[in-house]
Amino acid sequence: MPRLTAFLLLGLLASLPLAAPAQAPSPTYRVETLAEGLDFPWSVAFLPGGRMLITERGGTLRMYERRRLLDKPVQGVPPVFASGQAGLFDVTLDPEFEQNQILYLSFAHGDQDANQARIVRARLSGYALEDVLPIFTAQPAKRGDAHYGARMAWLADGTLVMGLGDGFDYREQAQQRDSHLGKIIRIHRDGSVPTDNPFLDRQDTLPEIYSFGHRNVQGLVSDLATGRLWAHEHGPRGGDELNRIRAGHNYGWPLITYGLDYTGARVSPYTEMPGLEQPVLQWTPSIAPSGMTLYHGDLFPQWDNSLFVSTLAEKSVRRIPLTQANGVLAAGEQDVLFQELGERIRDVRTGPDGALYLLTDSANGKLLRVVPADAPTSLRQ
Amino acid sequence: MPRLTAFLLLGLLASLPLAAPAQAPSPTYRVETLAEGLDFPWSVAFLPGGRMLITERGGTLRMYERRRLLDKPVQGVPPVFASGQAGLFDVTLDPEFEQNQILYLSFAHGDQDANQARIVRARLSGYALEDVLPIFTAQPAKRGDAHYGARMAWLADGTLVMGLGDGFDYREQAQQRDSHLGKIIRIHRDGSVPTDNPFLDRQDTLPEIYSFGHRNVQGLVSDLATGRLWAHEHGPRGGDELNRIRAGHNYGWPLITYGLDYTGARVSPYTEMPGLEQPVLQWTPSIAPSGMTLYHGDLFPQWDNSLFVSTLAEKSVRRIPLTQANGVLAAGEQDVLFQELGERIRDVRTGPDGALYLLTDSANGKLLRVVPADAPTSLRQ
Repeated sequence: MPRLTAFLLLGLLASLPLAAPAQAPSPTYRVETLAEGLDFPWSVAFLPGGRMLITERGGTLRMYERRRLLDKPVQGVPPVFASGQAGLFDVTLDPEFEQNQILYLSFAHGDQDANQARIVRARLSGYALEDVLPIFTAQPAKRGDAHYGARMAWLADGTLVMGLGDGFDYREQAQQRDSHLGKIIRIHRDGSVPTDNPFLDRQDTLPEIYSFGHRNVQGLVSDLATGRLWAHEHGPRGGDELNRIRAGHNYGWPLITYGLDYTGARVSPYTEMPGLEQPVLQWTPSIAPSGMTLYHGDLFPQWDNSLFVSTLAEKSVRRIPLTQANGVLAAGEQDVLFQELGERIRDVRTGPDGALYLLTDSANGKLLRVVPADAPTSLRQ
Repeated sequence: MPRLTAFLLLGLLASLPLAAPAQAPSPTYRVETLAEGLDFPWSVAFLPGGRMLITERGGTLRMYERRRLLDKPVQGVPPVFASGQAGLFDVTLDPEFEQNQILYLSFAHGDQDANQARIVRARLSGYALEDVLPIFTAQPAKRGDAHYGARMAWLADGTLVMGLGDGFDYREQAQQRDSHLGKIIRIHRDGSVPTDNPFLDRQDTLPEIYSFGHRNVQGLVSDLATGRLWAHEHGPRGGDELNRIRAGHNYGWPLITYGLDYTGARVSPYTEMPGLEQPVLQWTPSIAPSGMTLYHGDLFPQWDNSLFVSTLAEKSVRRIPLTQANGVLAAGEQDVLFQELGERIRDVRTGPDGALYLLTDSANGKLLRVVPADAPTSLRQ
């Protein structure tokens, strides 16, 4: 049974040691363990009526209902190439899920020698997926099991975007527009290409491409109120980035970067170049950003309109307040949250109840729920 | 501040004294008061992130956030004809609300001499409605302030249906297809008419009409899993009905009815007639059904796939289990719930957390939440 993991913290948590304008102190919170024993959980989606779906990287989709994780996985998930970073990744519900019970999964398809990020759509019927249909498969197939990206998000017009990694050994393809590697793509719900995608007049460019020059996008958030799209990506040694994504723009990898190669060598001598976008923020050394939510929940008013970025290497969640006026980040106002857990955090989400939900990246992965410290113990316990 | 109104009940609640097949005992539950001081609340909608919108019949739209009812109403609600039964009625979110922040309100528009049920669509921006646009206005205008229907629901194809009352003094119009009175109508989200509405080939019929022969439909639930549409309607003295709605069908009011006129006289000598639909259930004496939900929440497994019908006269909520096999109701298996509150209940809904939410019909109206008796005190308190 889930145990209560309670941490009561008072006042302001660690901020970056930069000159920071006055900000409200962080609210006190409590972290509850809703489930444990998850096998490297990657993503959580909230079903109407209180249930949740959780992906495990090995290829299973788990149902959380009646305050517990069901032992038997959801049936009908396609075979997944599970190795290293490869496996089952994101789960997201159709914007009209309540009407159509459709959901989308992203995963690695293929084998060690030839594999591709893929999106399927499927209908959830009881505890099984039906009508499973691939709607996107990244081109070309690649070797190895690293850098898939694979987070999905919905734009305000109902189109689906997904970030794709550079495949690690294929980083130059992030600048090649006949490849989906190192891109953010945008498609309709049936996989067809929106007629206003930015490169449709270019013969040399795959039509799904929305932006390019990315390394490994694992956080993707659509701010539906402002129409802004936020993405973060892992740098190599240093140079993790937060970017505001604009259609057709080039985010520079590997031509410009603030990071070093793992050998310590420079990937590129340049950190900027005309025509290439600068990140809104960069993190050196790397925090290894893994997931992201834009908080507009009802439980933490002081956190409203903040991006929360889950991290692996830093074992934290970064809170990055957005300003209402222009959407530009105020420098130096990041909180570093939840380090007391001592866990790599794979995903952070806002629940329908206004709580923050976290997944820990572990063979004994946990689903955690963050509520105000003064909140009564929740129904989820 | 909200007070805790707790009722702990054990075991089986009152059932109708009919031969009933064995059924699971009702779960024990607890009723929590989330808000009070509402002025005849009519409908509640659940916003992403934990907030709620509540209509008050007098014409105000209230926001519930951070565990309390805000004093200041949401701005921008159109002027409403508020008198007797007339006023602001239902609020429902667009199926893609998270993408577009669009919602729909139904209300009485006009004055005592000439008024009409109307639907507007609007965009919720902060604490105000913007881009408010009427998309449906019932024809013809009528006198008086009774029988509007005005509950809305979404079909699986994303079209919007609404039940309309017969206007009380206009009951014969329920059979006249050049009038919207006593009908269920079906429209697109912009108010246009779906090309597969049932009477488009009939010159004598208003194109929005989906079904007819209704008295006063105030419960309307679309079972998105099965495609079935359920409606209940008030009878006069007796003869409240639950109907399964099929496109183009005639539900018989006032040609056939199980009810009597308020004088005691017969409205019609007939309870059935060829070509007119029989109700799935009828209630005599009247319970005055006011709202309805189909429960698929996560908190009460024994209540799964039951219709819950809120009532005014009986001061209760009826639970009506549906059978998985054929959708027909098992006779005599109704629970009569929540009579211990001693309140007229105006609306019953399933929340995103799987709890049941109730609104009481009173000048000191309450928002109540029903959770399992063994659940920890909720975040809402």
